[in-house]
Order: sequence, then structure tokens, then C-alpha cells
Amino acid sequence: MQLFYTPDIEPAHPQYFLSEEESKHAIRVLRLEVGSEVQLIDGRGGFYTAVIQDAHPKRTILQITSVTESYNKRNHYLHLAVAPTKNIERLEWFLEKATEIGIDEVSLVISQRSERKEAKVDRLNKIITAAIKQSIKAYHPVLNEPVKLPELLARPFDGQRFIAHCEPGDKLNLRGELLPHGRYLILIGPEGDFTPAEIESALQNGFKPITLGESRLRTETAALEACFEVNFLNRI
Amino acid sequence: MQLFYTPDIEPAHPQYFLSEEESKHAIRVLRLEVGSEVQLIDGRGGFYTAVIQDAHPKRTILQITSVTESYNKRNHYLHLAVAPTKNIERLEWFLEKATEIGIDEVSLVISQRSERKEAKVDRLNKIITAAIKQSIKAYHPVLNEPVKLPELLARPFDGQRFIAHCEPGDKLNLRGELLPHGRYLILIGPEGDFTPAEIESALQNGFKPITLGESRLRTETAALEACFEVNFLNRI
Repeated sequence: MQLFYTPDIEPAHPQYFLSEEESKHAIRVLRLEVGSEVQLIDGRGGFYTAVIQDAHPKRTILQITSVTESYNKRNHYLHLAVAPTKNIERLEWFLEKATEIGIDEVSLVISQRSERKEAKVDRLNKIITAAIKQSIKAYHPVLNEPVKLPELLARPFDGQRFIAHCEPGDKLNLRGELLPHGRYLILIGPEGDFTPAEIESALQNGFKPITLGESRLRTETAALEACFEVNFLNRI
Repeated sequence: MQLFYTPDIEPAHPQYFLSEEESKHAIRVLRLEVGSEVQLIDGRGGFYTAVIQDAHPKRTILQITSVTESYNKRNHYLHLAVAPTKNIERLEWFLEKATEIGIDEVSLVISQRSERKEAKVDRLNKIITAAIKQSIKAYHPVLNEPVKLPELLARPFDGQRFIAHCEPGDKLNLRGELLPHGRYLILIGPEGDFTPAEIESALQNGFKPITLGESRLRTETAALEACFEVNFLNRI
């Protein structure tokens, strides 16, 4: 399967022009010819089949032959807010793996103990895009610009909100708390965890404390564990 | 906490001599002094507390003050047999993450479509060791030398055996199949999956086919997903 990510495609339009870069890749690298079939995903749930009408190496013209909307639509909405890891590669692979397993939105939350207070969203988005192509997903997870914890806590969210932390205190299991096919926002802290004051503030804002098991997990592993649990519990 | 991995420690012996490398790290880098408390894990379930009796930079002497056997003993046994990934870094992070989440034994299985037919177990074991120290686990997962699939299939295993593959056919969910607190051997194929003949051979050898969900997962993601599921389903 030759899959292209085409976020600017118009479902109503019978043709699509590949970008210069994609055209070069399709014609020069993949050696596709007139009549060759390709697949397109628009990142909004649209999955297209098309054939090459003009194998131009700079502006390849595709003829759309079929469109599937809401392709493999997910049965819940997962928004993970995770602190960027000091080693950015750990955040990068979390994004790749979460995209493979299933996630809808990621916020990069900056907390008091965050050693990294910024991250290049454009670069990280490229990793997500590569992952949806590799795992053939028609929906592109949304990656938000870094946000400070207080601002995130103050934002309204229509769904269940949880915070995973390592401080003492009663904690719930997602297994017993998650409303099936719902909307969830889960907070994952930085190396060194959220401060007690940050946790208290989250609880006062309606976030429920959860445990992700007895193991001591790295930030990116905890985030992936939460992603796994939510998808697993919503699997029909 | 200053944690050292000491596989050669004898539980009965009241003293332990740190290796030259560990001694240098403890005294020159960590600047530990006589009386400083440290923790030791032996990889066999033993968790020790000790104090420095002689802060020698080449042969630091520790006085064992307490021993806990079967520290955080796991309630099931998970043996994952996974094909080494073409890009070894993907196997490396799987080993790190699986160790954090919980795994007992890993076999590197070589199948017909394996692009990588060997792997340096010593180097990979260092990654596992670093992960048990980071996540404070007293049991060191066992990593076996690469083995060809037919040989692995022929080996006896006292427990449930499963194979995850992407070929068509009826597949089971671990959720419905897993006997709690049991022993499990799970096969994960290479990029490009097992061949139909290999899958048939596994089924004839008593392996049950399972699905890890609808997403198309990379080899190392599928292996981690299986690890997630088994630990999650055995969580009390």
C-alpha cells in the first residue's frame, strides 16, 4: 500500500495534486506510473483510494476513486496531558507508540519540577504523522503547544479528568472509574512528579487521583500505560 | 536512594565488597562516606540495606543491615518471545519498558522473515539491568540467546502459550483466555509477521492465536502491548 497524508484534500473534489515533495517521492522514489493505485488519509477520518492520472514528478495528479469517511473511528476520546521529558527522545517515542495504540489529543504540560519547559511541536507532529501512516490511521492526533499546569487545570473539559501521581494518598483504578466510550483527560507528571501543591490544586479542580500499578514508571512509560489502559478498557 | 545491582551477593554473608567500578562510583562520584546507607538488589528477589564500613575507592566494604527476600514478587510469570527488530534501538526500548512494567523472561526468536538474525545479549542485558535499578525491581528478567522458531516451538513450557499474528483467522482475546496468576509464553513476530506456515506450526504445537486489538502495531509495540495486557489482567 502506498499511503500519503493529505490534510488539505477536499472530499468533494475528484482530483488531488500531490505536493512537490510527495510527487517526487511517488514518481522518482516509488516509481509509480499512470494508473497506479495509492491511498490517502486526511487526518480527519477520511480514507481515500486514488489512481495516478498524471505522473508528473513535481505535481502528480491523482484521480479519487473512492472515499471512506470516519475510517476506523475510535469509540472514545483520550486527551493525555504529559510533562515533556528532559530527554526529548523519550517524549518522541511516547508520541509514536501512543499514536499506534490510539490517542486523540496530547498536551505538553509544564509543571514546577519540569526540567524541560519547551518543546518543538512542529518536529513532534512529524513523528505523529509518520506513525499514523505506518499504522494506517485516518485520524491525526492533535498535539497542543506547551501549557503551564495552572492554565490547563483551569480549562473546561467535557469528560472525566484524572491525575496520575506518586505521592501518598488514596488512588483509584481506571478499571473501576472509567465510563465506557467516554471522554477522558489524564495528567501525567514530570520526572520528579508533580509537587504536593500541584496535586492538591488538580484535585480541587475536579481531577481524580489514579494509580497505574505498583511499578515505579518513567514519565513516558506512565503516559503510555495510561494510554494502553484507556484503549484496553474501551475495546469492545 | 543509592541502589547497586549485586548479583554475586551471598544473603548469609554479613559483608559485601563492591566491585572496583562500583566502588569508584560510590566513593568518587556519589561521594558516599563511612556510615552512608545504600541499597542492593541481587536480581533474584533479594533487596538489601547496607552501610559503608570502609569507603575504599577500589574495594568499598558494605555491612549488610537488613535483607528482604522475594521483594515485590510478581503474581504471574510472563515469557515473551519476540523477533529482534531490524533497528535494534526498538528492541532496546521494548526491553527497558517491559522491565519497568513487569516481565520475567524474554527470548529473541528468529523467524523466516526476520531481517535481523542475531543480537548482542550482553549489551541488551545492560539495558535491562539499568531498568531494574531505575524502577527498583529485585528480580532481573532473564534474556535468552537468539533461538530459531522451530526450536522454540518444540521446547516444553508449563503454562499457557499464545501467538500474536496479523494473518486472517479466528483470534482470541487475552482478556477472556488468561488464567489469572498463571505462566504465559507469548510469541510476537518480526516486521512482516510470521509466515502462514510458521503460524500453522505454532498452532499445531498448542499455541493459541490472539489479537492485540485492531491497530496495526510495530513488532516492539505489539510486544509491549502484550506485556501491558498480561500485567494489567493480573493486577489485583
